[in-house]
Amino acid sequence: MINLAVVGATGAVGQQMLAILEERKFPTKKVKVFASQKSIGENIKFKDKQLEVEAIQPGCWQGLNLVLLSAGAEVSKQICPQIIKAGGTAIDNSSAFRYQNDIPLVIPEINPSEIKPGIIANPNCSTIQLLLAMKPIHDLVGIKQLVVSTYQAVSGSGFKAMQELKDQIEKWQQGKEIAPKVYEKQIAFNVIPKVDKFLANGFSREEMKLVWETHKILGDHKIKVTATAVRVPVFYGHSESVYVETKEKITLAQFKTALAKFPGVQVVDDLSKNQFPTALDSEKTDDILVGRIRPDLFNENSFNMWIVGNNLRKGAALNAVQIAELYREKYL
Amino acid sequence: MINLAVVGATGAVGQQMLAILEERKFPTKKVKVFASQKSIGENIKFKDKQLEVEAIQPGCWQGLNLVLLSAGAEVSKQICPQIIKAGGTAIDNSSAFRYQNDIPLVIPEINPSEIKPGIIANPNCSTIQLLLAMKPIHDLVGIKQLVVSTYQAVSGSGFKAMQELKDQIEKWQQGKEIAPKVYEKQIAFNVIPKVDKFLANGFSREEMKLVWETHKILGDHKIKVTATAVRVPVFYGHSESVYVETKEKITLAQFKTALAKFPGVQVVDDLSKNQFPTALDSEKTDDILVGRIRPDLFNENSFNMWIVGNNLRKGAALNAVQIAELYREKYL
Repeated sequence: MINLAVVGATGAVGQQMLAILEERKFPTKKVKVFASQKSIGENIKFKDKQLEVEAIQPGCWQGLNLVLLSAGAEVSKQICPQIIKAGGTAIDNSSAFRYQNDIPLVIPEINPSEIKPGIIANPNCSTIQLLLAMKPIHDLVGIKQLVVSTYQAVSGSGFKAMQELKDQIEKWQQGKEIAPKVYEKQIAFNVIPKVDKFLANGFSREEMKLVWETHKILGDHKIKVTATAVRVPVFYGHSESVYVETKEKITLAQFKTALAKFPGVQVVDDLSKNQFPTALDSEKTDDILVGRIRPDLFNENSFNMWIVGNNLRKGAALNAVQIAELYREKYL
Repeated sequence: MINLAVVGATGAVGQQMLAILEERKFPTKKVKVFASQKSIGENIKFKDKQLEVEAIQPGCWQGLNLVLLSAGAEVSKQICPQIIKAGGTAIDNSSAFRYQNDIPLVIPEINPSEIKPGIIANPNCSTIQLLLAMKPIHDLVGIKQLVVSTYQAVSGSGFKAMQELKDQIEKWQQGKEIAPKVYEKQIAFNVIPKVDKFLANGFSREEMKLVWETHKILGDHKIKVTATAVRVPVFYGHSESVYVETKEKITLAQFKTALAKFPGVQVVDDLSKNQFPTALDSEKTDDILVGRIRPDLFNENSFNMWIVGNNLRKGAALNAVQIAELYREKYL
């Protein structure tokens, strides 16, 4: 039985972490929940208990085997070393440690063997759904190039962003002026080609995460990845339009079969029955949904497809809990 | 002075056609307006007159120099030959004639010399904004490949679709069930990777329009075009994430300058000042807005960019009126 903590427990991802730990009957002895100052003292239901949100303070990590974090990179940078020092393992959903060579970055269906005590980084939401669909293809024929355009839900920016979308819609209905806060532009009835900060190379950090994390997780730094990350007025479910060029020839049937066989991936793709996934479908399943798979008309080894994933669950909380499960089997 | 008609005058594009003819002081003598059965007898304000919506009937095209149509492909197929027979020229916004070799498909900034009496086809909304940005690059160094993902506004499907988005949001707010009608899936808080019908090759017609029309308008059938067309819950403004590979080397500065100099194109791209275009910005201008221009990190002759355009105006009605203006200068 495990002593576990969730940091950022009142957030959009933190709440899902607790819900999924409960759903999947993760065996726990003591469970502690931490959140930012304003939530301290609140109660959170977990299994048959009410957990009181605690403040982070000296000694608070003592005796914990596992800590799941979703509280932003700054908090993680500060806390994770303390957790490790106290003898625990940290599964961190932020980008704080993802790109350090000695830190494993894990999607359990892809690179579970990298899980080890210490800090384990959870990849970015957009990366997880992309790579679940790309890994079987990469194993089969190798991937040469990926061109990705994302359609990302506001829940990826937390509860505040979801509230902002709701509020802006109401203001729009009332003919009132809309003053964006969480996003720099109006998100209601708009699409914003900016997710995370812009970097000097002209790409956003979100776009670069897709490059860095694809290379690290697939262990192949030669894959050409180019991405445009875009926020859309959707609450749940990230979608991705993906163009992939493979190294060797693969037929459409082989492509679809490889995806369908891969754990965590569902092919939803029968145009004759009008079957293709939309963002909303991601609320009904923990699988990544892939549709609109079609060979390119001009380049022989190229395909287009549409990938939908639940950004809060498989894109964040579920992936972290799956890492926790594998860690437990091996080490606890 | 010209005798002119607008067919589909009560629709989302038809209304814009009349508004733009008035805005741009297009010289007219007699103006007739046609629409579907349910609008007959309604009055439409145009300049200082009230025009009564007429029914299409034998002889109704007599004496007309120019007819602008936005009433769908089926109506256009039936009517355009009658207009030509009666001695008029038809500027058709539907896809009915776009892919016939003998019919000009015109973006006035790109191929104005193709305008001639008879039927003149207006390109698809997504094509117009894409090619306005691509033409100067194609002229400079040649385009080898385009990978396009669209984020298309519901106004492209007409007033019914705009109403559907509004209604679905209200139902969602009231916790009521949503039953899609115009679109096959819920559009509120969702993105739908289907625009127009699916074809046997796995692409949608909307996606193929980008292939066919790029080839025809740029006069180069070797350009590799691959597209994914997606509907988003936005009222106005189509956005496109575009990856372009050129035939020869071009610097970022040359790329931006070529775009900025091209008529109808505005470069909105200064990340240090957080400047990039969003769908909503298309309501403020008739120019196509291009931002997020950045060289690819892996392929030398490749760039990513973000193109926003007003789908009802430059993407449809304005382009048709600009064709009418050039036709008038030459032939009337």
